[in-house]
Amino acid sequence: MDIRELARHLGLSIGTVSRALNDRKDVSPDTRKRVVEAARLHGYIPNQSGRTLRSGRTGTIGFMLTLEHDSAIHGDPFFMALLEGVQAGLGEHDLDLAVLLARKGEDGLTFLRRHVSRGTVDGWVLSGTQHDDPRIAFLLDRGIPFVALGRTATARDYAWIDLDFEGVVADAMGLLTGAGHRRIGLVAPPATINNSHIVVEQYRHALAQAGIAFDPALVHHGETDESDGEVTARELMALPDRPTALLLMGETAPVGAYRALRRLGLEPGRDVAVIGLRDNPACRALSPDLTCFSLELDDLGLALARGLVTLLPGQQDMNEPLVQRLWGMTLRLGQSHLALGQSPIAN
Amino acid sequence: MDIRELARHLGLSIGTVSRALNDRKDVSPDTRKRVVEAARLHGYIPNQSGRTLRSGRTGTIGFMLTLEHDSAIHGDPFFMALLEGVQAGLGEHDLDLAVLLARKGEDGLTFLRRHVSRGTVDGWVLSGTQHDDPRIAFLLDRGIPFVALGRTATARDYAWIDLDFEGVVADAMGLLTGAGHRRIGLVAPPATINNSHIVVEQYRHALAQAGIAFDPALVHHGETDESDGEVTARELMALPDRPTALLLMGETAPVGAYRALRRLGLEPGRDVAVIGLRDNPACRALSPDLTCFSLELDDLGLALARGLVTLLPGQQDMNEPLVQRLWGMTLRLGQSHLALGQSPIAN
Repeated sequence: MDIRELARHLGLSIGTVSRALNDRKDVSPDTRKRVVEAARLHGYIPNQSGRTLRSGRTGTIGFMLTLEHDSAIHGDPFFMALLEGVQAGLGEHDLDLAVLLARKGEDGLTFLRRHVSRGTVDGWVLSGTQHDDPRIAFLLDRGIPFVALGRTATARDYAWIDLDFEGVVADAMGLLTGAGHRRIGLVAPPATINNSHIVVEQYRHALAQAGIAFDPALVHHGETDESDGEVTARELMALPDRPTALLLMGETAPVGAYRALRRLGLEPGRDVAVIGLRDNPACRALSPDLTCFSLELDDLGLALARGLVTLLPGQQDMNEPLVQRLWGMTLRLGQSHLALGQSPIAN
Repeated sequence: MDIRELARHLGLSIGTVSRALNDRKDVSPDTRKRVVEAARLHGYIPNQSGRTLRSGRTGTIGFMLTLEHDSAIHGDPFFMALLEGVQAGLGEHDLDLAVLLARKGEDGLTFLRRHVSRGTVDGWVLSGTQHDDPRIAFLLDRGIPFVALGRTATARDYAWIDLDFEGVVADAMGLLTGAGHRRIGLVAPPATINNSHIVVEQYRHALAQAGIAFDPALVHHGETDESDGEVTARELMALPDRPTALLLMGETAPVGAYRALRRLGLEPGRDVAVIGLRDNPACRALSPDLTCFSLELDDLGLALARGLVTLLPGQQDMNEPLVQRLWGMTLRLGQSHLALGQSPIAN
């Protein structure tokens, strides 16, 4: 149970609960007794990090990065631009940003446990959220402030901002089904990643809306990087009833897909429609122009920082709701989606 | 409760408690669990600075990143792959990696001073070395272990690994002058960056060897990113006696340069020769294939980590020389350099 849940249970504000647990004078003895007893009963673990903050904070926020996942799915330029925004937001509050890298093959919880026991940082930004992500409960149970870039399957309440993958897939599928495509290949992130579920769900929903049967052979879960994009495009185009369009939910996957299509004698945007995830230097280098989505990474980083800062002790404003929002992405029309939904020309 | 009291309470040695709280491998999971739970129950707050004094280490190495410079010049995929190697090298010694980001507009020395006074990390990897870089003397004077990715103008002795920009420029200029190019535009990093000096010096040397006069109008110092590549290519092609070849020393500059050339009706590799710096996803997306250079970033990261680890207290081996080496890059021939050294076709 975290302080928020404890407060809700008691029908008190978080501030009152916090003051009661910290033996502050402005809480009546009765209230204090009630809070302390409820805390004991419900196994509330006092916020160690909060105490450290009050008694001598590190002044540093950790951004937990798992290179193996994050770099492949979101791509490097995504993170560097995002970090710039996070840093700017933290700088407003005189906080430093430390990007802490999980070791190769290291479990995320082991990593967090080590840094939390060391008191490395005052709070966390988590990325690459998994569908079942034990980091969320770990931090909530300890009252350690954090904001997640991405949702998870948990029913618990925490601060998050996530890219609007629902909107992205709906827009892309609308373009493709509207142009007559009925065989649409999908390259989605690994199934452990939460957004992978959202992408596949929305893809199925869009197919159903267009009266098209779902074919699992058209869905691939992978690293969604350049080489994965190439291999998957080749495999999808080798299907007996091959797709006329590809939707690639990775930053550099379209680079590999263009290459694979051309090796098969197929021209992106003419013979096969291609839609990518995000406007980035690699995608901007493609010709014909890739149809994909754009977002303001600086602003997203700022919003993450601000969402976190309100959770830090001393900054906490009881009237401020937890940040929980979908971050919109804007369709950027290129020429790659223009192929019509007819059987592509054989090579 | 301090660690002494906690150890007495648990009937364990201070060493065991300390190792358990530090998540060290030589403590059984049961003991670790017992210690961590008791620490939490009794409100033991690990004293980071005290621990630093006892063991002489935080167990963490800082990678100082200046987004404004590093990201623009070397590009994001460069750093993410490099960090993976550094992390692997540090992991061999049970050390963590924290990427610490200088704030926007913040002076590098102010940044270092703050983190050194806090004792954030045990040692540093510096990147984006300037021609005159006060960070070198600052760390040397305080005996703080570090390794620099890049050389500087200082005469003092320190550990560094630098990309072999001399070799890169020599190879590229050899290809271009050999094909008859006499007007070669150069896009070099900002003049404050040490490698910018090396690039321009080697460019002049190669021109002299080929009997070509140096023309300062052909040399541009910039951020060498995508938009800088585009603007500079346009400006260079607007010269009365415009270049027949472009040498672009930035990761994404070629993406912008291809765009600028095509807007002028000029085809890279046919009308104007283009050579880029490094094989990365953005450059691999270009068509015709970009002639550029490749290097093993994982290995470079590993070498930086190993060069640093030998400097850490307890690891120091007096017979081990300081790492000071140029890191070779391999020419990767595409089709973009194939244009001949004749006045390009006007649009």
